[in-house]
Amino acid sequence: MKKLPDKTVERLSQYRRALLDYLSGGKQHIFSHEIANLLHITAVQVRRDLMLIGYTGTLRQGYDVKELIEIIGKIIDTRDGQKVAVVGIGNLGRAIMGYFSGKRTRLSIVAAFDVNPEKTGKIYAGVPCYNLDEMEDIIRREGISIAVISVPGEEAVKVAEALVLTGIRGILNFSPKPLNVPPHVYLQEYDMITMLEKIAYFVKKN
Amino acid sequence: MKKLPDKTVERLSQYRRALLDYLSGGKQHIFSHEIANLLHITAVQVRRDLMLIGYTGTLRQGYDVKELIEIIGKIIDTRDGQKVAVVGIGNLGRAIMGYFSGKRTRLSIVAAFDVNPEKTGKIYAGVPCYNLDEMEDIIRREGISIAVISVPGEEAVKVAEALVLTGIRGILNFSPKPLNVPPHVYLQEYDMITMLEKIAYFVKKN
Repeated sequence: MKKLPDKTVERLSQYRRALLDYLSGGKQHIFSHEIANLLHITAVQVRRDLMLIGYTGTLRQGYDVKELIEIIGKIIDTRDGQKVAVVGIGNLGRAIMGYFSGKRTRLSIVAAFDVNPEKTGKIYAGVPCYNLDEMEDIIRREGISIAVISVPGEEAVKVAEALVLTGIRGILNFSPKPLNVPPHVYLQEYDMITMLEKIAYFVKKN
Repeated sequence: MKKLPDKTVERLSQYRRALLDYLSGGKQHIFSHEIANLLHITAVQVRRDLMLIGYTGTLRQGYDVKELIEIIGKIIDTRDGQKVAVVGIGNLGRAIMGYFSGKRTRLSIVAAFDVNPEKTGKIYAGVPCYNLDEMEDIIRREGISIAVISVPGEEAVKVAEALVLTGIRGILNFSPKPLNVPPHVYLQEYDMITMLEKIAYFVKKN
């Protein structure tokens, strides 16, 4: 199957998240406009995305929630799951690890890295924290494919370079520093200030 | 001026962030394809966004970096800045406050809220932490327009309802629970797992 567009994958993950929540309310079917409402997008967008993955509901009942959750899983999950490392165990790194524990996802955080000797050797949310020196060895040995960068901005470039050398395939950058990585590494930037500036624009009165 | 599309505003904020970084390297002009490279998007997208805000560079030199930073600021910033509150002072709340301190932005975090009596009354990254009971009073008194929700999922719905009653105008939801708010409140959801699932999809081998 050809790779889906970036934004479609993002929405599929969001659909699944919303559907799991909806299912826990006891309902078994859902219409595209209801999914759309849950996510604040248009029903046309929902139908277009689900058509792309070859799923159509019935006119009368809409989509079967469980079936749709399963189909999305088949598309976006890897059969054996994927391993994730978190680099930088400050408040943000710890928040990320806490966020994950107990979540239904095929991704698992298996290693954390930091330079602070008070943190290395400890366990955070069930995940061992290693020294940054050991990163290449552990990422290769564990078969970790994705890394989350949660170090301060001034260290992010160096950390990203080191990660690329380990053979990592995807990076989520939470540091405020924009990064450059080779094209074979999938980079997702996340800057909190951008999100807040966007909100600020839409709420300002002038 | 008509409101710009959601995604354009997001990119304008990212352009400014990248341009400030670029400027610190000493260069004064930049071409659309260079901005595009910094952000991993197409040059056509950059030119389209800048056309929307009425800015055109010169064929020979490209865009004037300082001028462009200033123009973006005029569009997305409010003259007097906007005030932000953070609700939930766990690791994530503290990470958000740390992230902000010292950043060039017209947004300022002026209050934090938590239910834990060990946290209320304290100062985090220069920001006072109040009890959740005081939220309505303080948000009104301070004229806070934007709130960041960083409480656990099971508390997020209640917090969002309380925030809507305070007259808040924008919410950034970092909790794993999708929220529903009235249409006059601008809601931005952010789920870390969605971002990681997207990366996982693009790095998987099959």
